[in-house]
Order: sequence, then C-alpha cells, then structure tokens
Amino acid sequence: MSLNLDPILDAPIDARAKGFPHGAPAMRLRDVGARRWNVLRGDLPFPLAVVRRAAMRHNSAWMRAFAQASGVAIAPHGKTTMCPQIFARQLEDGAWGMTVANVHQLGICAALGVRRVVIANQVVARGDVARLVELMRAHADLWVCFLVDSMAQLARVVDAARRSEPARPLAALLEIGHAGGRTGARSFDEAMTLARAIAASGVVHLAGVECYEGLAITGDSERDEHHVATLVETVHAVASTCDRENLFAPGEVILSAGGSAVFDIVARELPQRLSRPVRTLLRSGCYVTHDSGTYERLFERVRARSGEPWRTGEGLQPALEVWSLVQSRPEPGLAILTMGRRDVSYDIEMPRPLKWYREGVHAQPQPTAGEWRIDKLNDQHAYLRVPAEADVEVGDLIGCGISHPCTTFDKWQLLMEVDDDYTVVDALRTFF
Amino acid sequence: MSLNLDPILDAPIDARAKGFPHGAPAMRLRDVGARRWNVLRGDLPFPLAVVRRAAMRHNSAWMRAFAQASGVAIAPHGKTTMCPQIFARQLEDGAWGMTVANVHQLGICAALGVRRVVIANQVVARGDVARLVELMRAHADLWVCFLVDSMAQLARVVDAARRSEPARPLAALLEIGHAGGRTGARSFDEAMTLARAIAASGVVHLAGVECYEGLAITGDSERDEHHVATLVETVHAVASTCDRENLFAPGEVILSAGGSAVFDIVARELPQRLSRPVRTLLRSGCYVTHDSGTYERLFERVRARSGEPWRTGEGLQPALEVWSLVQSRPEPGLAILTMGRRDVSYDIEMPRPLKWYREGVHAQPQPTAGEWRIDKLNDQHAYLRVPAEADVEVGDLIGCGISHPCTTFDKWQLLMEVDDDYTVVDALRTFF
Repeated sequence: MSLNLDPILDAPIDARAKGFPHGAPAMRLRDVGARRWNVLRGDLPFPLAVVRRAAMRHNSAWMRAFAQASGVAIAPHGKTTMCPQIFARQLEDGAWGMTVANVHQLGICAALGVRRVVIANQVVARGDVARLVELMRAHADLWVCFLVDSMAQLARVVDAARRSEPARPLAALLEIGHAGGRTGARSFDEAMTLARAIAASGVVHLAGVECYEGLAITGDSERDEHHVATLVETVHAVASTCDRENLFAPGEVILSAGGSAVFDIVARELPQRLSRPVRTLLRSGCYVTHDSGTYERLFERVRARSGEPWRTGEGLQPALEVWSLVQSRPEPGLAILTMGRRDVSYDIEMPRPLKWYREGVHAQPQPTAGEWRIDKLNDQHAYLRVPAEADVEVGDLIGCGISHPCTTFDKWQLLMEVDDDYTVVDALRTFF
Repeated sequence: MSLNLDPILDAPIDARAKGFPHGAPAMRLRDVGARRWNVLRGDLPFPLAVVRRAAMRHNSAWMRAFAQASGVAIAPHGKTTMCPQIFARQLEDGAWGMTVANVHQLGICAALGVRRVVIANQVVARGDVARLVELMRAHADLWVCFLVDSMAQLARVVDAARRSEPARPLAALLEIGHAGGRTGARSFDEAMTLARAIAASGVVHLAGVECYEGLAITGDSERDEHHVATLVETVHAVASTCDRENLFAPGEVILSAGGSAVFDIVARELPQRLSRPVRTLLRSGCYVTHDSGTYERLFERVRARSGEPWRTGEGLQPALEVWSLVQSRPEPGLAILTMGRRDVSYDIEMPRPLKWYREGVHAQPQPTAGEWRIDKLNDQHAYLRVPAEADVEVGDLIGCGISHPCTTFDKWQLLMEVDDDYTVVDALRTFF
C-alpha cells in the first residue's frame, strides 16, 4: 500500500508551528530536510520534539520481523503518532493496514490512500456512521471495520446506516470485554446475542471478534499471561460459535487484539483455527518510536518471554526525545527547563533526562548522571532535580526520553526527524 | 490596540482539524459562523470543545471592571488560549498588552499587531534573543520585556544581543522568586547584584520587578495572603532600592505579578509609590474562560475576600466545555465516553460531567445528577461512573466542564464558539 503524501509534503509550514525555526521563511514540509538544520548548533527553537530516524526505522523493521516470525499481521495503531509519514513507513514495512481510534482519524487515513482500516472503537454518532458510508462510497477499494459491543449501539448504527444507503454492508468486529474493564461485551451469552443480531441486521456484517488486553497489564508476566489467556478464551469461544452458526460474513475472519505492552503473548495466544481463513491482527502502535519509560520496562518482559533471536538480539529503541534548555539554576539542586505539560507526556510518569549538551564544550550529547530526575511540570516549565554539586548551567541543553509516546506526539504538529548527529533530515507533521 | 486577524480568518480550515464537521468543505475560518451548525443537532463530530460566547464576553468585561476598580492594568497571559481571536477580545476590553511564555508565542503576537508584550519567562537561547531583536527591528512600535533572574542568564543575553545589534535596548523585568519555588532570585542581595548588573549592561534595560505568586497558592486565604505579602515585600524592597540607586530605565517602572488564583490579593498588595510613574500589571490568563474546577473554587475565595459588588454580583462564569458521546454502557455503573487525554485537561483533576442531552427527548441540555463523575481517562476514552439505576444510554451527549483551561485549549487547534442554544457562532483557532 503506497500512500499519497504529496498534499502534506507540499503544504507550506511556517514559524507559527512550535518547533519551526523562528526566523526561517515558510516552506514546504518536503524542503525542511535540505536545510540541514542542527539541533545542537541551536538552529531550532526549544523545546523541540525529535524522532531519531535510525531508531524509528529499526523499530519498524523489528516489528515486521517479529510479526512475520509469529505468523500474525499488524495494523499499527495510528492514533499513537497521527503522522502520515510514519504511517507510510509502517505500511512499507509490511503492515497489513492501519488502526485508528475514530472516524475523524479514518478520514485522514482514507485521504492518504490507506485502504484497510480498523476503527478500534465503537462508532455511535449518526454523523460518524454517515461519514463512514460516504468514505466507503468515495473509495470503492476502502475496507473499514469498527467495534460493536451492545445492542443499543448496533440499533443506532443500523438506523443511521439505512438512512445513508451504503453501497455495501458495514463490517463490524464484535468486542469482548472483561469485568472492570472498558468497552466490550462482558459475557459469552451477551456476545452471542449481539453476534446473532449483527448477522441478522443485513446492514452490518460480522467480520470478526476483537478484544483489548492492554488496560489490565501489570508487568508481572504470570498475571499478564493469565489475563490474556482468559480474555482470549472468550474470544475463541465466541469465534468458534459464530463460525459454527455461520454468522461471519464471507471472506477472512478477523481476530484482533494487542496493544504495545504484551503483543508477544497476544501473537502466541490469539491465532485460532476456524472453518474459514483467519487473519490474526495485532494493533500495536507505540513500538514505532518505543519510549524510555513504561514500554521500555514492559519490553524487557517481552524479551524475557521470547526465544531467540528476540531475547538477545537488538530490541526496540527509544526514538522520541524532547529537548529543552536550562533557563534558571535558582537553587543548588534545581534546574528549571523550558518545557512543560504542553510539550511532553506526563500521564504515566515524568520525562527522563537522558542527555546533556553544553555548546562549545561537548562534541556530542553526554549521558546524564543517573540521579538527575524531573519531578514536576508546570504548563511551560520542568523541574530538574540534580545533586547540589552537579555541573548544570543556564543554557545547557537537556534531552529527555519520554514515557508513553501517544501523549507526546499529540502535543506537536511538527516533530523533527534527526540523524545520529541531531541534524534534521525531515519534518514530521501530525494531525490531531 | 486593534489586531489584524485577517490572515487567520481568511485561511482555510478543513476536516483534518479535530472538531470540524466531517463532510463539510474546506472554508475560511470567518465563514464558519454563517453555517449555523448546532452541537446538539449533531452537526459536528464528537468530542468537541466549545466556548460559550456569553460567558467568555462576560468574563472579559468582568476583568476590565475589576482591574479598573483596583487601579491596575492587565496583560492577560496569552499562553492560556493561544487564540488570537480571544486576544483581540481581551485587548478590546482594555487589556494594556499581552503576556506570553516564550519567544515563539511573542512571534505570534507580534504578527497580529500586539504592541506590548511581557514574556513572563527567562529568555536564554541565542536564537531566542536574536529573534527578539529581529522582531523589535521589524516593528519599531513593539515593546517587549522578559524576565531575568541570574547573572548567567544576563551574560548570555548580553552576548547574544550584542551579536544581533539591537536597534534599541532590550527591556528586562528582574524576577523575584522564593525558596522552594520555580525561577526567580532567591534573596534581596542576589536580586540587587543582578539589578546593578542589568543597569550596567548597556544592552539590557531594567524596566521593572516581577514575581509569580501562583505556585504556592493553597485556597486558604490567610496562608495565601501571607505568601503574597512576603513575596511582594521583597519586590517592593528591591524596587525602591533600584529606584533610589537610579537603576531603572527611563519611563514607567513595571511591577508585575498575578496568575488567576489570587489576583485580588496581588491587585491590593503590589502597587507601590516610587519616584517615577509605576504601572502595576496583572498577568491573569485563565479568567477569560474560567473553569469548573480549580479556578472556580479559588474564585469563591476571591469573592469572599472582596467588597461589593464583587462579593455578591455575578462572578466569572465557566465558558469552556468538552462534549462527547456515550459509546458504551458495559456495566450498570459505567458509561464510556468518546473523549480522553487528547481532548480534555487532567493535570489537576478529572473533567466534571455537567450536562446531559438525549436527542429527541430533551429540548435543552439537562443538569447531570450530582453523583455522576469521571474517574479515569485513557487516550481516547473517559470512564463516567453513575449510580446503577442511572438513565444514561449509548448515544447520549455529555457536556463536561474542565479544570485548568490551559491544558484543554492546547489539545484543540479549533474550538467552536457557541451561543446559549449551542449554535456555532464562530470558530476559534489556536496556535500551540
């Protein structure tokens, strides 16, 4: 699947976008790389979000190899980055399609030329259903499915779809949830009632069964394996009953699960043999930039659970960093940085100061001392705690790793893709 | 000060912006209001951020009256909304200028025609200083000041400014901090050493003295008054010493403080008589939309501390709401909403479900029962907890008030300004 990025690459960007050099003239996105701006040389303003090209490419290729070796397909969750240029890379690296969180994101994918999209969410609003039908009509080769988890939702979708007169039936995945979880049918019986209703609706086809295991993951492999196994057991029971009752629409049956936390367990547990072809579909999104926090820790569990070469080979690499400047050293143990809640993830934990660079002194960014840590953010400031004797000066650059890429990407309309020397090789546009 | 909004109002927006109707053609921002889209009729996608026009206009006028009555000027903090259309309203309502958080935001203000800007932050990066000088050169009538709190910062600014050959001196406010706080000189002696160095620098002029009281506010009026009084005492001591030593640049001396938490205490405590004219400058930003959380509670303290008419008259009104749809009712006490961390503030507390609307049943949004509450957000979902018997259905609309407007505004490039019937009267663009 090759995407048409031209409208994005040809659109002008200017210094109104955070991260674009103050004084630079407006230019097409595609022309940014040729400027050879360098982050460490101070060619760009701070704070600045950067994606390390080598790490991102490595991660994308790593996931292709892992999925291939596991015999599963991947439709990476696009909501992580909402960056068409990254979608294109993921599709080049063998992704079967893309996953999105809602119809707005579907619209962006459809315009790019993505032709297989999983909306890993309930579609409910009349306007969303109408838009879905409209996009399917506009693109005869567009395949979309979405989640259904209640009779009430199904009734709304059927009603709205009938008014929109779809050219072909809508495709639904039946969502299986778990007690105390988020969406999804809570029992086998409830799920089967719904599956039969979908199959009988005429307007909505049953394309498969889905669950999301990521909300209850702990990092304790034994508990996490048990959680996935229990959830998948219901998915399998529902899928085989639907198969027996001939409720699935013609074509492949889709079984889908998998965030970025325990995708190895999902890849092992989810595949199932039915009377017709089954496509097992992971939806991991965060792997592409990985992180320096929650996913870094969870990935160590993935490796520990996996055989060779995954256990010892090169794993996923953190590709996303936010750089800022020390603006004040008001107390011996405190440095204030020019980045805040507007610039960096803080929903799971604080950013991690990884790199330190002083112009005129360092040839390369230096690793920070382990005891440096950020313990607070304001809207536009971070509090970096250092030992009283630490050598941190006003004007020093600090490169932070983040935890949870989704909530850093959504704070930037423009991220800079950099090489190993922090020279900008491309500018990445997001659409949140 | 009248702003040139034309480049923003004339620029096309399209459905790639979250909140813009899926199927609508690209159009100029200024043409949105004429479409008469209605939120409750389902003309727009969800989630959707709305600003209630009447409440915002009331708040803007309220602050004009309060500042006038208190004898202080206001340069509203633009970082709250980063919305030029709201800046224009604030300036029409008598704001003396605008405050911003960094040079990127200054650039946006300067392009609009704002001609008095306080950068309520340290400027440190060479590129930021160069840009500041360039903007001052490009706009002969642009007055900008920024904060200085250390000799190290001053040395960097002086060095960078000399290289940029400024047409006129840069204006600095000396920042006074407090132990355990953020930026700002920690003692009178440190502050005076710095004041003398600024005055002697030639390149940087000392335009006034500044502090920020908002980080240590508790909501306990006695403690908060003591905190402000202590901080302002140092500001006054430094200002009068600078005055005596003739360190201030010609013209008005600026004394500035004031977030949105205790602006009444600041307005009362900060004014000071010096040998030359003094401008007391508040920088409150959140008042313009107010909120349904932290500022709502703090504002009750403002009223309790204030005389008539502030104590009993109509106070600030919450103007900012995020609307979403119930997408699932998986358990009796749980409704899942189509909004998440990407759409709504969560840094201080969770959004508050205030309004409930069921199409075809309700003529108007209904107040929610008091016990409904949101206790968790994922990236794209909210968990609304309701009593088991609550009448909440898939497809119902829920309007949430938020706590801390800054971190809701920065999640939207487009917010819809609505009238009392939730008809869209204008679209508001932000620049984060």
